[in-house]
Amino acid sequence: MAEIRHVVMMAFKDGSGPADIERLIEEYRALPTAIPTMKRFEWGPEAGVSTYTEGYTHCFVSTFENVDDVRDYGPHPAHEAFVKSLDPHLEKILVFDFEVR
Amino acid sequence: MAEIRHVVMMAFKDGSGPADIERLIEEYRALPTAIPTMKRFEWGPEAGVSTYTEGYTHCFVSTFENVDDVRDYGPHPAHEAFVKSLDPHLEKILVFDFEVR
Repeated sequence: MAEIRHVVMMAFKDGSGPADIERLIEEYRALPTAIPTMKRFEWGPEAGVSTYTEGYTHCFVSTFENVDDVRDYGPHPAHEAFVKSLDPHLEKILVFDFEVR
Repeated sequence: MAEIRHVVMMAFKDGSGPADIERLIEEYRALPTAIPTMKRFEWGPEAGVSTYTEGYTHCFVSTFENVDDVRDYGPHPAHEAFVKSLDPHLEKILVFDFEVR
């Protein structure tokens, strides 16, 4: 069975404090409960080794079984609600999907 | 045991053809043989769903047991040889490490 990694990197606005960020991470972590096609979820803050982070501070990797599930995830109501919470705090975002080889 | 994901995204120069890119991927895939602290390696080309890829076309995720192993990996001779091969073909690169939560 194929595995698609859905890699998301974020940087938050200066005005977004640790409590905002923690709440957003909790919301993101709750998505697999609402969206069963999210087969796995992991995340972490940037570990401080790299000098090529492009300013991103948090990375989130979820796993889907196929590209169609990734496409369907975007407009899922639970995902859309999360995006609405996230949007005002987002300085920048990168989203990259790949099928694991 | 902790797991550190070492996420690397790349875009290649216009002048770098498929054969160059394939060769570089083969070199990257061979690194865990030379560098036993690389516990896992996976990669794939961008799957075409996201509109937020920032132009990156390939993602590589390797796994280390701790941040020190990531630090030691940089100057490892096998890694340095790979970087030397890679460098002339690289349009841009992003490197982000995180401890899995």
